[in-house]
Amino acid sequence: MLKPLGDRVVIELVAQEEKTASGIVLPDTAKEKPSEGKIVAVGTGRVLENGERVGLEVSEGDHIIFSKYAGTEVKYEGNEYLILRESDILAVIG
Amino acid sequence: MLKPLGDRVVIELVAQEEKTASGIVLPDTAKEKPSEGKIVAVGTGRVLENGERVGLEVSEGDHIIFSKYAGTEVKYEGNEYLILRESDILAVIG
Amino acid sequence: MLKPLGDRVVIELVAQEEKTASGIVLPDTAKEKPSEGKIVAVGTGRVLENGERVGLEVSEGDHIIFSKYAGTEVKYEGNEYLILRESDILAVIG
Amino acid sequence: MLKPLGDRVVIELVAQEEKTASGIVLPDTAKEKPSEGKIVAVGTGRVLENGERVGLEVSEGDHIIFSKYAGTEVKYEGNEYLILRESDILAVIG
Amino acid sequence: MLKPLGDRVVIELVAQEEKTASGIVLPDTAKEKPSEGKIVAVGTGRVLENGERVGLEVSEGDHIIFSKYAGTEVKYEGNEYLILRESDILAVIG
Amino acid sequence: MLKPLGDRVVIELVAQEEKTASGIVLPDTAKEKPSEGKIVAVGTGRVLENGERVGLEVSEGDHIIFSKYAGTEVKYEGNEYLILRESDILAVIG
Amino acid sequence: MLKPLGDRVVIELVAQEEKTASGIVLPDTAKEKPSEGKIVAVGTGRVLENGERVGLEVSEGDHIIFSKYAGTEVKYEGNEYLILRESDILAVIG
Repeated sequence: MLKPLGDRVVIELVAQEEKTASGIVLPDTAKEKPSEGKIVAVGTGRVLENGERVGLEVSEGDHIIFSKYAGTEVKYEGNEYLILRESDILAVIG
Repeated sequence: MLKPLGDRVVIELVAQEEKTASGIVLPDTAKEKPSEGKIVAVGTGRVLENGERVGLEVSEGDHIIFSKYAGTEVKYEGNEYLILRESDILAVIG
Repeated sequence: MLKPLGDRVVIELVAQEEKTASGIVLPDTAKEKPSEGKIVAVGTGRVLENGERVGLEVSEGDHIIFSKYAGTEVKYEGNEYLILRESDILAVIG
Repeated sequence: MLKPLGDRVVIELVAQEEKTASGIVLPDTAKEKPSEGKIVAVGTGRVLENGERVGLEVSEGDHIIFSKYAGTEVKYEGNEYLILRESDILAVIG
Repeated sequence: MLKPLGDRVVIELVAQEEKTASGIVLPDTAKEKPSEGKIVAVGTGRVLENGERVGLEVSEGDHIIFSKYAGTEVKYEGNEYLILRESDILAVIG
Repeated sequence: MLKPLGDRVVIELVAQEEKTASGIVLPDTAKEKPSEGKIVAVGTGRVLENGERVGLEVSEGDHIIFSKYAGTEVKYEGNEYLILRESDILAVIG
Repeated sequence: MLKPLGDRVVIELVAQEEKTASGIVLPDTAKEKPSEGKIVAVGTGRVLENGERVGLEVSEGDHIIFSKYAGTEVKYEGNEYLILRESDILAVIG
């Protein structure tokens, strides 16, 4: 299991065919294009300057849209994942 | 449905013909030019260093002017949206 | 009506002839040159890290001097405006 | 009257002949060279993150030395002024 | 013994053959590639602006994935180590 | 008299012959080289975000070592001074 | 005596032959290489935004590893020292 640190999440990329199924089509323009993924693990959150830890807004299982060039790829037990900070997540599809 | 995170909003772009109707005409100068949109979803707000979450000033349905190059485009269920941070919103037209 | 967000203001530019009338003449040097405007709307202010919102120092109707290249131009109902942050305002003429 | 905002001051530049009189002579080296002025108006100060406003250390009438390239020049009712932030003031001559 | 300061950790790099055994395979793409290590010492944590010290989320013995170009290499008593900040650690493998 | 603002100090440069006497010799390498001075005036200190003002660690009369390229030179009543921020002071010689 | 300010320390560089004795050998790679020193004086620490001063984690006599290009060299009473910030210290050898 991969346990992300702080305000990070581990996601599985959602393949192109699923992407069409869930209704997300990326427009063909010069603007930044987001990608879609499913959260498989969330960190414990970031620590505020008053010592309080703030949990993440997202949960395991959430389908999310994130900034295309964000995150770090890893392969673990044969699967590919991406580790992102919560701030790179734009929206939850729900 | 797209649920934006933190201090983000999801907007529909307002087309040029509507733009004329609502009275906004962009001047033809070298300064930064804003665009107009309608908010369809708002995030839960950002978390302050004292742990308090600050809701957004804008609400679903607001017509807004935003910085032209701000945000990330997404298509969802056949419609185009833009996901912005509240700080990229200049004013509400009301 | 344009309602600016946070610590922003909406101003009308003061034309060159009015500018002479009110006594402001911009010197011809290499230093940054300010411009003059009249505030037509003010935002609700910025939120501090303790959750308190700080109102603006300026009010509707104030004549101000601001940094020349600051702000974003908009046309609304046939009039031209500039949307500035309060931090771009140098002084009130009063 | 020019009322500067926040932690800004309005100053009159002190001419070269007065400068000699008050004893300040700028050395001829490659280091940053300061200039001298007299404060004619001070802002209300900056707002801390706890909501408190901190008044300025300088007062109307103070003779100051400031960083040479700081500030914005304005002409108002036929006189030239410079608008500076307090942080650009190096010392008071007293 | 190496005692890291603040929010730093000392790690042993995990060799390529172990890496395969534990299931991490780095994908062959242009994205940032992480590395794997085992924590041998942790610092006392960083000090918040309220004076409180926040301990690290990771502990001695943890297997971690970290950003590939992070950290500083040292050799100590014949062994090679890497000293990282906790913020360069992406996830714990557990 | 020059009264420095905030966390600034006014220093007299210590001449090369005095420098040798007090035991400081600058090494001839590519690293940043410090200079030596004597403090003739100190500011009232900086204001923290809780509104408290923190006095300086150094006092009038202290011999200090400071970063070579720091500060602003002024001549006042025929003498040369340097105005520094306390953060540019490396150590007190005592 | 050299008394460093704030969160600074004064160190003596540990010569190459001692370095081998204490077991530190710097690897021959492109990564940032640390150096070794012995602390001869520590500052009083940095001041937090709540007014509290935080003492340093290191003490006089500590053997430390620091970032190679950090700090400022001084010669004092015939000896060479390096003045560092505590944040440039990677670990204590103990």
